[in-house]
Amino acid sequence: MRAEIIAVGTEMLLGQVVDTNSALIARHLAALGMEVYHHELVGDNPERLGAVIRQARDRSDLIVVSGGLGPTPDDLTKQVAAEVLQVPLATDEKALDQITRHFQVTGQPMTANNRLQALYLNGGVALENHNGLAVGSFYRVEAGADVLLLPGPPSELTPMLEQTAVPLLQQAYQQDEFLESQVLRFFGISESQLVTKLATLIDRQTNPTIAPYAKVNEVTLRVTARATTAAAAQEMVAKTVQQIKAVVGEYLYGYGDEGSLAQVVVAMLVAHHMTITGAESLTAGQFQSTLGDVPGVSAVFPGGFVTYADTAKEQLLGVPVSVVAEHGVVSAETAQEMAERSRQKLNTDVSLSFTGVAGPDSLEGQPAGTVWLGLAQRGKQPQARLFHLSGSRARIRERSVLLGLDWLRRTLQVTK
Amino acid sequence: MRAEIIAVGTEMLLGQVVDTNSALIARHLAALGMEVYHHELVGDNPERLGAVIRQARDRSDLIVVSGGLGPTPDDLTKQVAAEVLQVPLATDEKALDQITRHFQVTGQPMTANNRLQALYLNGGVALENHNGLAVGSFYRVEAGADVLLLPGPPSELTPMLEQTAVPLLQQAYQQDEFLESQVLRFFGISESQLVTKLATLIDRQTNPTIAPYAKVNEVTLRVTARATTAAAAQEMVAKTVQQIKAVVGEYLYGYGDEGSLAQVVVAMLVAHHMTITGAESLTAGQFQSTLGDVPGVSAVFPGGFVTYADTAKEQLLGVPVSVVAEHGVVSAETAQEMAERSRQKLNTDVSLSFTGVAGPDSLEGQPAGTVWLGLAQRGKQPQARLFHLSGSRARIRERSVLLGLDWLRRTLQVTK
Repeated sequence: MRAEIIAVGTEMLLGQVVDTNSALIARHLAALGMEVYHHELVGDNPERLGAVIRQARDRSDLIVVSGGLGPTPDDLTKQVAAEVLQVPLATDEKALDQITRHFQVTGQPMTANNRLQALYLNGGVALENHNGLAVGSFYRVEAGADVLLLPGPPSELTPMLEQTAVPLLQQAYQQDEFLESQVLRFFGISESQLVTKLATLIDRQTNPTIAPYAKVNEVTLRVTARATTAAAAQEMVAKTVQQIKAVVGEYLYGYGDEGSLAQVVVAMLVAHHMTITGAESLTAGQFQSTLGDVPGVSAVFPGGFVTYADTAKEQLLGVPVSVVAEHGVVSAETAQEMAERSRQKLNTDVSLSFTGVAGPDSLEGQPAGTVWLGLAQRGKQPQARLFHLSGSRARIRERSVLLGLDWLRRTLQVTK
Repeated sequence: MRAEIIAVGTEMLLGQVVDTNSALIARHLAALGMEVYHHELVGDNPERLGAVIRQARDRSDLIVVSGGLGPTPDDLTKQVAAEVLQVPLATDEKALDQITRHFQVTGQPMTANNRLQALYLNGGVALENHNGLAVGSFYRVEAGADVLLLPGPPSELTPMLEQTAVPLLQQAYQQDEFLESQVLRFFGISESQLVTKLATLIDRQTNPTIAPYAKVNEVTLRVTARATTAAAAQEMVAKTVQQIKAVVGEYLYGYGDEGSLAQVVVAMLVAHHMTITGAESLTAGQFQSTLGDVPGVSAVFPGGFVTYADTAKEQLLGVPVSVVAEHGVVSAETAQEMAERSRQKLNTDVSLSFTGVAGPDSLEGQPAGTVWLGLAQRGKQPQARLFHLSGSRARIRERSVLLGLDWLRRTLQVTK
């Protein structure tokens, strides 16, 4: 089964925006066992888009198009696909309701062009958009290539693809073999280290396959098995996952495409009935904000402190000026004081603190990327850990948050 | 003059690596005044690469190919291009010397396939590679499309493109027109509203062109003009920008591809010598973390409060239990108390507070997306504003932060 990926958008054609959708789509199609030989990118031009879709139709069984579903006059993907396929467009009433409600709730005027976002290929399936207003569309044809239309913004495309389109494709192209796959998520180990440690396992495997993928701050492995029954495929995946865990289980923090280190940590806190706070200098609230991303965190997180300046460390936490003066603000002592005092202030079970040099400039003679984390636990001596990170200011701050979450994960794992 | 961009690499076709080269090449070609209508991506497959190059030749004047110049058996771009163009390959002696020296210096054995990296299209120009071993190639033809071959790794492609290839193209295709463009960034107005408000302006314009683009939480407009002198093009852009500002200037917060609302606000605070803090409930530190992203923010931001639970609002800020009990936690009164009390605690000039329902569940009978922002300013009565937002938890929180920043921007604009 052969698939082809088309991205639509003049801003990508001009290079103002990098197309990341096509790579994401390609990974999912590969996981479904489809062969992809071509990606194309065209602007918001109906003639050229039509020509590219026609070309793809002649050599592929499925065409996945991203972009051009929005409300503006240059969003023409649905109209062009309808013309090539010779099918009319229909309005998805549920989507139209959602669009109308959106404008009622936000109090903005609903211009007529917004109705276009509820259109889909008549006779096909409309794909609901949980993060935007434009519906997707999946249309199957008797002979020729089926067409899947997805929205352009990655925040809309990713959930629609992963939650709705991939299951639809799986169902549509039910092979006589079953495909099972599981994603393992690792933190604290690089892709090359992971691949080196698992080299014999990866080289030996053709079914299941083990595909590593390096994301910005983590590495994932996708284990995919094919078998004649779903149960057999599941068993093959489970066995390989066990083999992987035997080698690198220490770095494994979660499963699946969704879920984050913060979710894992919050779930552990909830399970242990433990409360948490934080005191943040270089991360300036990013750790607490990351906790706040997790629904239900209010059960374990009352709030905390952003102590960016030394004065705030003293005023809000009571960290003695003498500690900062003697040891420096980027020090184990300051990190421990911040963690323990914030824990006491809000009477929580644990607290994490962050102090360091986000950059670009150095601080107290310490280079950008020097970071101390502090961990306070009720009834225990506070601890501190030093990290030397590299990269941009944003990367250092984000990495600090993740290192803190991973430290918590490892600590809570052995806590009863 | 029409150009076409082709990327070669199976790892990109499978989505394991995102192609960023094509966007970079596109930006440079646009700056040279060339029109690009198609990007293609194919794997390391000589038949399909040959077909794509032939197709490009029939509709373009220049074909830029990246990738497939290396020493491994799947690097075949030069061989395929030579076959399509019917020209032999020649060895660049300077590059061969460099390759030979590289292996002498590193002490690694030089295998025969490494010689392939010194090949270029005979009769054309070999482009030196300062960050790798494979030379590029620029070949002009009498009739048909010229061909530029560049290496795949961005660390090699970028300098070769910018230092060698762009000047070569400039010289080869001496244009008699100049291109100027400027990006305008808007917040608080949707793409469809913006396009509707500017409809007559957009429809009327062919030079300059006005291209809207919706990002996650903002909309940009790119104004691009062509003229026979750079000054004339600049003047045309400036005039159109003025016309746009006359209609929607209120929503315009910045210029250029870089920069964020937070940067604009921090720059205004620094300019006004004003300090800021925050008290965050539903955003849980995200507002302060967004401020913390901006280098130099320490001059105006000492720190602040994350008051997720009602107890923290009382303990950390002293918000009276009676206020929350009487008006609810999601109320103008609570937002004002949070802003004013946090401002007083850290004695700053302004403070912004966030209280609301991030979702997915409702709170106090108020639906997810109900958000009150509070703004306190030294010597003034605190204010509060109500917003009704839609979307996921993450989207509601992020949108709240941006609405707060935009409120600050508008307030600081009229502050002296």
